[in-house]
Amino acid sequence: MIEIVKPMDIEKRSFEIIGSILSERGITLDEEKAPIIKRVIHTTADFEYVENLVFSENAVQIGLDALRSGCCIVTDTQMAKSGINKTALAKLGGEAFCFMSDEDVALEAKERGVTRAIVSMEKAARLEKPIIFAIGNAPTALIALDELIKAGKLAPKLIIGVPVGFVNVVESKELIIASGVPHIVARGRKGGSNVAAAIVNALMYKLTR
Amino acid sequence: MIEIVKPMDIEKRSFEIIGSILSERGITLDEEKAPIIKRVIHTTADFEYVENLVFSENAVQIGLDALRSGCCIVTDTQMAKSGINKTALAKLGGEAFCFMSDEDVALEAKERGVTRAIVSMEKAARLEKPIIFAIGNAPTALIALDELIKAGKLAPKLIIGVPVGFVNVVESKELIIASGVPHIVARGRKGGSNVAAAIVNALMYKLTR
Repeated sequence: MIEIVKPMDIEKRSFEIIGSILSERGITLDEEKAPIIKRVIHTTADFEYVENLVFSENAVQIGLDALRSGCCIVTDTQMAKSGINKTALAKLGGEAFCFMSDEDVALEAKERGVTRAIVSMEKAARLEKPIIFAIGNAPTALIALDELIKAGKLAPKLIIGVPVGFVNVVESKELIIASGVPHIVARGRKGGSNVAAAIVNALMYKLTR
Repeated sequence: MIEIVKPMDIEKRSFEIIGSILSERGITLDEEKAPIIKRVIHTTADFEYVENLVFSENAVQIGLDALRSGCCIVTDTQMAKSGINKTALAKLGGEAFCFMSDEDVALEAKERGVTRAIVSMEKAARLEKPIIFAIGNAPTALIALDELIKAGKLAPKLIIGVPVGFVNVVESKELIIASGVPHIVARGRKGGSNVAAAIVNALMYKLTR
């Protein structure tokens, strides 16, 4: 049976249902992290994220401080960029970037025989702005970030590390967890551009709604 | 341990790993559907799609025929549109549309008190072109498609019905399964814009790679 719900109330009703399912399963979420975990479940209908999502100490507060000061967001896919709520981001004075389709990135990647994700992270490092990275696809992007940080070429405010897949995905996320950089990571194989965007949006909505 | 894989080989290696995991679990996929199911797993790392994905009779062949003849793709999110491989689509002479952010759609939705998804499906019906719908977010889009079809205002080539979520999602997908229209549907709550784009891409790659 189709439930009659007003357009404005669909999201609210969804979060209520997610809350009920969590309660039924006896799961209590940390208050600060709850909006992020619930929005990822809202985006995926996958309750495994209750266990998968790993937050470094004060990651939520650090992310909020960065967003409040108008930091930019760099993604590794156009899809993640397009999933970020631009109205909320504009309210905060931020901007979203994805360098993956840039011609110079494609050319350099081909010449060096590396992924475009690596080259686009190096390009982001040259922005010289406060950055939250939202990586939902390429483990090579996370590996590149880890190397840039260790080389002192980059100090991201926060890394949202949620690539999905089967080759080096699990390992690249563990690198970020071990890096000491503030992070929100989806441990294991799961994640995606949609998850990356959902986490960015959940953080922004804490400030804009 | 990070596995050294050349950029060009990452996808190939991922599909090999997915194939091995399916074999280990004793799962044999239908040959025609396998590339679609595997690409959805590649996009989500979620093996539940082996059971979730429902194909109407000859859905793959019908989709391929439509793509071969240069049909257009209509999505219900910018994210799904941005996940569709534009190079492959251009090779096939197709075009992707998403009307969700159009001003006229927003205005009409507000006036009528309905979702923008409904209005954007009605706008798509006025395209008068062969269309594959790729719906990864809004159950109201699927409900609108079902109504337009029953009213004789629309005859889509194929509906990819994979909204994700908690309000009317399961029910809207069952409507499409019961409709008699060619479809590929992710039964249950799971799906997403990424899944919708992955299915479109998997179909296109059968013709372009």
